[in-house]
Amino acid sequence: MIMKRAVFALAAIGAVAGVIAFTESASGQTGGETAPIYGVKIPAGYRDWTLISVARVGAPLNDIRAKLGNDVATRAFREATIPFPDGTIIARLAWNQVSSEENNRAFTAILERRLSPDALQKLLSESFVAGPATNVQFMIKDSTKYASTGGWGFAQFTDGKPDGEAVHKTCFPCHAQARDRDLVFTGYSR
Amino acid sequence: MIMKRAVFALAAIGAVAGVIAFTESASGQTGGETAPIYGVKIPAGYRDWTLISVARVGAPLNDIRAKLGNDVATRAFREATIPFPDGTIIARLAWNQVSSEENNRAFTAILERRLSPDALQKLLSESFVAGPATNVQFMIKDSTKYASTGGWGFAQFTDGKPDGEAVHKTCFPCHAQARDRDLVFTGYSR
Repeated sequence: MIMKRAVFALAAIGAVAGVIAFTESASGQTGGETAPIYGVKIPAGYRDWTLISVARVGAPLNDIRAKLGNDVATRAFREATIPFPDGTIIARLAWNQVSSEENNRAFTAILERRLSPDALQKLLSESFVAGPATNVQFMIKDSTKYASTGGWGFAQFTDGKPDGEAVHKTCFPCHAQARDRDLVFTGYSR
Repeated sequence: MIMKRAVFALAAIGAVAGVIAFTESASGQTGGETAPIYGVKIPAGYRDWTLISVARVGAPLNDIRAKLGNDVATRAFREATIPFPDGTIIARLAWNQVSSEENNRAFTAILERRLSPDALQKLLSESFVAGPATNVQFMIKDSTKYASTGGWGFAQFTDGKPDGEAVHKTCFPCHAQARDRDLVFTGYSR
């Protein structure tokens, strides 16, 4: 139960800023229901936005994640603009990490004469690709609408459906810890 | 020495399909020198291409990586088109994984009453963000020009400079293992 609540809290954490691809087409159709508290919908075309950075979170989540930004976000990240301007939207996609038998066979073929058996085994056991999506999160900057939460609205969707109020209550208190970075934990990776 | 050669070989592996951001601006300026063997330059604007998927490779590399695709590549990935059409370009970016003190403080604040000390420590020790870039790799489909290597040209750049011939000789034999997927290890993550 404790573990379950921890996973729940973690799933809600945007600390390493989550997205399942509800709208993975390039058509940019905004879709679905509105998430609670901040009233955010899945933004059109987010799956084609620019990659900001990648990260991963350990057990019990064991995910690999990517942050994408719309044009306003990407420009602000690249120019290190703080605070982020209104119109900024950051998406966090995340997937369970899974082993790839095919990749591991390829690694083995290339590396078995170059690494010790132990070192090869270690590499294989630590190498993962993206498996099933977990959830997708968004941060939207609107300094007027979201004045009481540092100018940011937050949302999390699982399988294209907004998560509940309890999840959404966890977003701001956690992000508020990154006050000197306008509540954004992620930096741009060149 | 063995380890060094292994790292070298790994750095060259596109098995989990590498990119340092030589041209990280959105201006799309193609730049720099031509890589050996396949004659590939860093493609204009690749840093803004669509995210295909993410992955990571264990020690000795310890990286987190992302694959990006140009429009032709992205469409082919989404529609599972095999073979990939001419004009497909896939970019692999990779960064050393580094711990984030700021993220770990945030995780601790949120999770210390929800996880056991051991479980929290495990989570912190397994959570990473992207650090310095390692290298960037490209796969370019041109079934005429690259007929002798399955239709693909390969290139790797470190700090914006092409790597040497020895590195480039390792690309095709490794990717040839993914023959049934047109030499592409990565799949699209929804």
